[in-house]
Amino acid sequence: MGFAKKEYEFLSEIGLSSENLGCYVNGKSKANGPVVSSVNPANNQTIAKVVEGSIEDYEEGMTACSEAAQMWMQVPAPKRGEIVRQIGDALRAKLEQLGRLVSLEMGKILPEGIGEVQEIIDMCDFAVGLSRQLNGSIIPSERPNHMMFETWNPLGIVGVITAFNFPCAVLGWNACIALVCGNCVVWKGAPTTPLITIAMTKIVSEVLEKNNLPGAIFTAFCGGAEIGQAIAKDKRIHLVSFTGSSKVGLTVQKTVNERCGKSLLELSGNNAIIVMDDADIKLAVRSVLFAAVGTAGQRCTTCRRLILHESIYQTFLDQLVEVYKQVKIGDPLEKGTLLGPLHTPTSQKNYEQGIEKIKSQGGKILTGGSVIESEGNFVQPTIVEISPDADVVKEELFAPVLHVMKFKTFEEAVKINNSVPQGLSSSIFTWQARNYLQVDRTFRK
Amino acid sequence: MGFAKKEYEFLSEIGLSSENLGCYVNGKSKANGPVVSSVNPANNQTIAKVVEGSIEDYEEGMTACSEAAQMWMQVPAPKRGEIVRQIGDALRAKLEQLGRLVSLEMGKILPEGIGEVQEIIDMCDFAVGLSRQLNGSIIPSERPNHMMFETWNPLGIVGVITAFNFPCAVLGWNACIALVCGNCVVWKGAPTTPLITIAMTKIVSEVLEKNNLPGAIFTAFCGGAEIGQAIAKDKRIHLVSFTGSSKVGLTVQKTVNERCGKSLLELSGNNAIIVMDDADIKLAVRSVLFAAVGTAGQRCTTCRRLILHESIYQTFLDQLVEVYKQVKIGDPLEKGTLLGPLHTPTSQKNYEQGIEKIKSQGGKILTGGSVIESEGNFVQPTIVEISPDADVVKEELFAPVLHVMKFKTFEEAVKINNSVPQGLSSSIFTWQARNYLQVDRTFRK
Amino acid sequence: MGFAKKEYEFLSEIGLSSENLGCYVNGKSKANGPVVSSVNPANNQTIAKVVEGSIEDYEEGMTACSEAAQMWMQVPAPKRGEIVRQIGDALRAKLEQLGRLVSLEMGKILPEGIGEVQEIIDMCDFAVGLSRQLNGSIIPSERPNHMMFETWNPLGIVGVITAFNFPCAVLGWNACIALVCGNCVVWKGAPTTPLITIAMTKIVSEVLEKNNLPGAIFTAFCGGAEIGQAIAKDKRIHLVSFTGSSKVGLTVQKTVNERCGKSLLELSGNNAIIVMDDADIKLAVRSVLFAAVGTAGQRCTTCRRLILHESIYQTFLDQLVEVYKQVKIGDPLEKGTLLGPLHTPTSQKNYEQGIEKIKSQGGKILTGGSVIESEGNFVQPTIVEISPDADVVKEELFAPVLHVMKFKTFEEAVKINNSVPQGLSSSIFTWQARNYLQVDRTFRK
Amino acid sequence: MGFAKKEYEFLSEIGLSSENLGCYVNGKSKANGPVVSSVNPANNQTIAKVVEGSIEDYEEGMTACSEAAQMWMQVPAPKRGEIVRQIGDALRAKLEQLGRLVSLEMGKILPEGIGEVQEIIDMCDFAVGLSRQLNGSIIPSERPNHMMFETWNPLGIVGVITAFNFPCAVLGWNACIALVCGNCVVWKGAPTTPLITIAMTKIVSEVLEKNNLPGAIFTAFCGGAEIGQAIAKDKRIHLVSFTGSSKVGLTVQKTVNERCGKSLLELSGNNAIIVMDDADIKLAVRSVLFAAVGTAGQRCTTCRRLILHESIYQTFLDQLVEVYKQVKIGDPLEKGTLLGPLHTPTSQKNYEQGIEKIKSQGGKILTGGSVIESEGNFVQPTIVEISPDADVVKEELFAPVLHVMKFKTFEEAVKINNSVPQGLSSSIFTWQARNYLQVDRTFRK
Repeated sequence: MGFAKKEYEFLSEIGLSSENLGCYVNGKSKANGPVVSSVNPANNQTIAKVVEGSIEDYEEGMTACSEAAQMWMQVPAPKRGEIVRQIGDALRAKLEQLGRLVSLEMGKILPEGIGEVQEIIDMCDFAVGLSRQLNGSIIPSERPNHMMFETWNPLGIVGVITAFNFPCAVLGWNACIALVCGNCVVWKGAPTTPLITIAMTKIVSEVLEKNNLPGAIFTAFCGGAEIGQAIAKDKRIHLVSFTGSSKVGLTVQKTVNERCGKSLLELSGNNAIIVMDDADIKLAVRSVLFAAVGTAGQRCTTCRRLILHESIYQTFLDQLVEVYKQVKIGDPLEKGTLLGPLHTPTSQKNYEQGIEKIKSQGGKILTGGSVIESEGNFVQPTIVEISPDADVVKEELFAPVLHVMKFKTFEEAVKINNSVPQGLSSSIFTWQARNYLQVDRTFRK
Repeated sequence: MGFAKKEYEFLSEIGLSSENLGCYVNGKSKANGPVVSSVNPANNQTIAKVVEGSIEDYEEGMTACSEAAQMWMQVPAPKRGEIVRQIGDALRAKLEQLGRLVSLEMGKILPEGIGEVQEIIDMCDFAVGLSRQLNGSIIPSERPNHMMFETWNPLGIVGVITAFNFPCAVLGWNACIALVCGNCVVWKGAPTTPLITIAMTKIVSEVLEKNNLPGAIFTAFCGGAEIGQAIAKDKRIHLVSFTGSSKVGLTVQKTVNERCGKSLLELSGNNAIIVMDDADIKLAVRSVLFAAVGTAGQRCTTCRRLILHESIYQTFLDQLVEVYKQVKIGDPLEKGTLLGPLHTPTSQKNYEQGIEKIKSQGGKILTGGSVIESEGNFVQPTIVEISPDADVVKEELFAPVLHVMKFKTFEEAVKINNSVPQGLSSSIFTWQARNYLQVDRTFRK
Repeated sequence: MGFAKKEYEFLSEIGLSSENLGCYVNGKSKANGPVVSSVNPANNQTIAKVVEGSIEDYEEGMTACSEAAQMWMQVPAPKRGEIVRQIGDALRAKLEQLGRLVSLEMGKILPEGIGEVQEIIDMCDFAVGLSRQLNGSIIPSERPNHMMFETWNPLGIVGVITAFNFPCAVLGWNACIALVCGNCVVWKGAPTTPLITIAMTKIVSEVLEKNNLPGAIFTAFCGGAEIGQAIAKDKRIHLVSFTGSSKVGLTVQKTVNERCGKSLLELSGNNAIIVMDDADIKLAVRSVLFAAVGTAGQRCTTCRRLILHESIYQTFLDQLVEVYKQVKIGDPLEKGTLLGPLHTPTSQKNYEQGIEKIKSQGGKILTGGSVIESEGNFVQPTIVEISPDADVVKEELFAPVLHVMKFKTFEEAVKINNSVPQGLSSSIFTWQARNYLQVDRTFRK
Repeated sequence: MGFAKKEYEFLSEIGLSSENLGCYVNGKSKANGPVVSSVNPANNQTIAKVVEGSIEDYEEGMTACSEAAQMWMQVPAPKRGEIVRQIGDALRAKLEQLGRLVSLEMGKILPEGIGEVQEIIDMCDFAVGLSRQLNGSIIPSERPNHMMFETWNPLGIVGVITAFNFPCAVLGWNACIALVCGNCVVWKGAPTTPLITIAMTKIVSEVLEKNNLPGAIFTAFCGGAEIGQAIAKDKRIHLVSFTGSSKVGLTVQKTVNERCGKSLLELSGNNAIIVMDDADIKLAVRSVLFAAVGTAGQRCTTCRRLILHESIYQTFLDQLVEVYKQVKIGDPLEKGTLLGPLHTPTSQKNYEQGIEKIKSQGGKILTGGSVIESEGNFVQPTIVEISPDADVVKEELFAPVLHVMKFKTFEEAVKINNSVPQGLSSSIFTWQARNYLQVDRTFRK
């Protein structure tokens, strides 16, 4: 069945059509739940329809997956690596189309869309290498003629619940490692990015089928909270990897712990960038722009706080406001666009409410601050001058809003950096190694 | 230019013709040394001609390679890994033809020829994974506010001198790791397998060229002792990896050490298999056959000594002699052949002399023992009953000759196993873990 | 003040008297909570009195500990290692007395009491070595001229809640590693082993004082659930290590997770020993005896299930019942005693109720099964023949009760082994390496 | 028998007297070689006499050592660690006296003498930790139901040949690791520091004896080239660790390689310090002083080249010359002395000849440059301004002579740094991390 628009036709190259079955269960596409629309955040029009999974689909999938787990864990690790290598190659062949779909359905700009798929490819390469290095240990014992052996056994099944902002990369990080380690994977993608979930699943499933392996090794569901809760509760799933808000994440963890399961959480962040007086300003301005506006501020590692040394404060801000004003906002698939739409109308509303709150707590808007009237969920990239003590600074507003603060001493800057409850990532711009070495939090992408 | 025989025409698919330039120097095929013939050991007829490298070719190649080393070591390790990944994929695309060439020129049977190329592919996968794991260390210091950093720097250039019996796998083991670690590679293949050297080099060079990298990153020479000595003496080559006889290897090491270089030697072996009284005889017989007759006994890890518990001695030997008699000898490219020719007429002569020596030292031929009259360098697979004390048992006769000995106690078996100067590999067949754990030498392929 | 009995006088050599302050807070012994008695389980008479900590003591201790954490994490790791080395030497000097106290207050036999203290000494040695090996990584980046640095930062404060059965070893496992890693330690010992808590703390505190370090680096409390809950809730404690029942452990985990803390749990077990038909029976009988009766069955790794191959079932049981009947029961400090009392009268009661339940579910008592009338909490070591399907087999009765079952095939044995909710430890007796390699659970002490 | 001077009497506390037997052979002190004098380099007077080992002593020692190696490798690694721990404690007990002896016999100042012994103590701690971490690997195989095991086996016997400048620390680095790894140690100390060799050996031997272990596990010889050559040639010694000149080291390596042994060489160095224009001058001046004058310039890592940025060249030199003039020269055991004597009259002569050569190649003496007339081997600490191209700069003159050079760009500085044949150590003073990260050689103590 044809797509509504000609520009969606490339989707047929990655196995999608205007109506799609949202589950991959026991090696077959099927779905018996509600029908939902996948929507383009740049215009809020439907791209295609998707049938989500029902709880019966879930049960059927898990039964098959549990059985597949028994055989998959017996497959030698290097052979499992070979499967992951083929997945990497299959992704390489469709890199352009998958990246395009990520931009279309999630709303991030095309280079980011392609970059996200490339990350999975890189993970495949990494995991293939690991598949020959999952070494156990032979440990010397204090008893004569004794040795202790320690080996890594597969867990069994790894559940992966991902969020809209990285609709396929996060699956890649988890699944590549889980698969080479001998685990089956059960994936629930974000409810608002079902086409990506289906397309990624087709890539993986075709590799499994080509190698005459049970499709149930990789089991996937489009769906919402019901499926998510089923995963959290399911004793057959030994590890649940969850990416999303801290609030939901802690609930998932609690549910998993009650059944003595393991959980791996990737939750909220509140990234800060400290710029010292000796920093390369030009480099730092460009980096802050990318860190605060990229993905429309919808990364867990989005820079939300800019902590500037007083001696370069004004110069830096002048330059930053200038580049903010030149940011091209628009269709993420268009060449040159730097800032696409927020993912949903709700996100846009949250942005509006957030700006009001900022103002009410003494924040001064230096640039931006408004919603852009259009069919899509666009907002202006925003810089706010505010006290580090304002409550709103401690929260994670998932939008391109940057709080700017001033400091005098390095110690003060580190204190501000560490004054929020979240702890994911931070960075510092300086030439002085002594500063670098004292920064208190770990660095991550 | 056409090949002499139609069955050689597949060689054109891997870039070979009836006359070939034997060096890859500064990104170009060239060669100004003597013209040699590549000969099929199954019939001693010429396959194609090759121009070897002159010492001037060598010098030109090394000048370019030294320069390329300066840029290659600056390329980020994961990018170097990407090149190695592409080499792996290029090999996959020509696996059949390269494996066929190995059988044709070296003489090993086709499954072994293909298996040898597959090993390089596996090494590529492994090395790609490593390219994101070449981690240095940050070591805690006992001084407050100090850290120690330890990083792995590329050596610069790694020289690889390989032998006829694994004419391309050994290059693969060395080059894949050397390349991801940031080193350029200089390769001298065996004088009697120049076509493999050229075909492998073409695979690598095409990847380098496609990525707009200097071809001199991989520099290769067909040639003999003159080029080998030049490599050993060359201060620009920081590590020399040599595979071959212990005698030549020690000379190479001496030359390299005199200039404070590093060497990595893969020399002679004298593999033994111990079979305990509780062993699975059927499994062990099949394994011994493969270990002693495979590659016509021309592996460094070929089983040359079979150490049998007295209680299963006769049963085991009866079965082994029986399977030896069924070994199909012939053209290694023919389906079903288990034993191809020795690599050269000289190897055949060494076999003959070796058998004479064995007899003169009390060895009793249980099966085989003769050269096979034909155009090629064929010999019979041979089992000899002999005392472990005979001098000839301590030597490495590069042919399918197996010395059989009897023992009473496990301790005695280990003592026999360890009574030779070489120490490469050994194995034991037993169900009793306590035996396994006491075996004295390390295990390797 | 003198001890009630002459045989308790050795306690003065490790800093104890007839009345003791149960907290070590900001470098000082103090305590303002209820007064409790430490009781000898062999006769239920008081050894000495202890003042437990109040919640105010806790708060004072944590304030000082938080401050100490700021300085301790700046001390270079090798210097921290030197402190742990000195703790090890201080333990060596009092090994005999500490071991004696463990036997006296906990009830395990003297060799086990001394062995427990020796474990801490071994941990000290191990941790000292680690103090020069807490290496971070320098990871190659795909960007030219970039590197990624990954270092291990101290968490801050580690809370350790330990149980009566290993009243000091578990502290040692946690504290030695925590200290060299740069963390302060807050310890709550078991309510029924306060003397051990105080004596261990004195050892550590004297080393800190000798080195002019704040005593608050190591903060300790005698006390019960109130202090335990305070630790679980305390945001200043970044990791809580808990050893005890699964039920309490899951509650602690939940509390810690709610405040985004980390927890490390050491909970219930249900160890099984599989004995194959080819096993060394004599060795296995001795091992089962030690595994099932040692520490009066009060280890998390106590063998509670014996899974015997049908062909050796009767022989094995005959020998085992025989050695059970020879077990010397009595005062754990007396030479030759193999089985001391259970830790409390409640434990004894649980044993009685457990035996009733076993019988009601079809269990057949082969030996033992009764409480021993005396002043202390003694019970008979017990062997029960029972179906693997009985519910009671899935529970952890903390007493010397061994359930025996029969199997035909290796697969059946593994299935029985894995049929309980707990998964701590298991073992198999066999000479066949293939069996060993397929056992499904990991091995630990 | 009493010592010649009262100030030598402390030597009796570490087992020395005025005449000493120089070998520890099969657990006994003995020696049948020539009698030599141990001489104080501060006054060239005899401290005590020593009987060196004969080649017969050597043979007797090696026979016993070979036998001991068979049992020592069977001792569990953690038990071997316990022996090394006791050696560490024995050294702690005699730290002061051993450090004093190092100063007296070698000539380095007392804090360095004590520091050298402390290094062995630290190595003991490190090695004890390693004794529980000598893990082998269990490697996943591509064949179903197969694993590969890789374990570390002891080599057997490790030979250690040490030099006068670190007469006991180098033994410590080698022996601590060798012993926990399960190897016996054969030590030949430097001919001019026999008392240290004997005192260190007594420490080790007493620990072995106390533990009822064969003394032959540690076999030691005072002696010269004859014993050294015997070690190099001895097939029973699987690894020879040699510290000394590059010339002798390469000869040792050649001899060891001829018998297929392993060697570990610690040879010449030519340390450079680069000081950038942004460096902390005060810190750098102090560091250069310590690096160039410490141990009277007789370390392999002594700073011999100072590479100064032109913009700070004169300022830096002015300050450095000033601090050089204040260096207190004299008896190394006297408090406040910074520069003791060279080790021998020959060293003093080499210094004189070196200064002449420097002058003849255009070197300009900025301070120092002369021998100091006295009973001992004292020389002036010397700074020379010279071209980096002068031949003499490429040589290792084992004396406190510092060559100073000027540079304009960072690249030029690195080029000068790398323009010598030796490559042991280097350092740079700068605040700019980008400089640090590009320095080409690895850093070591």
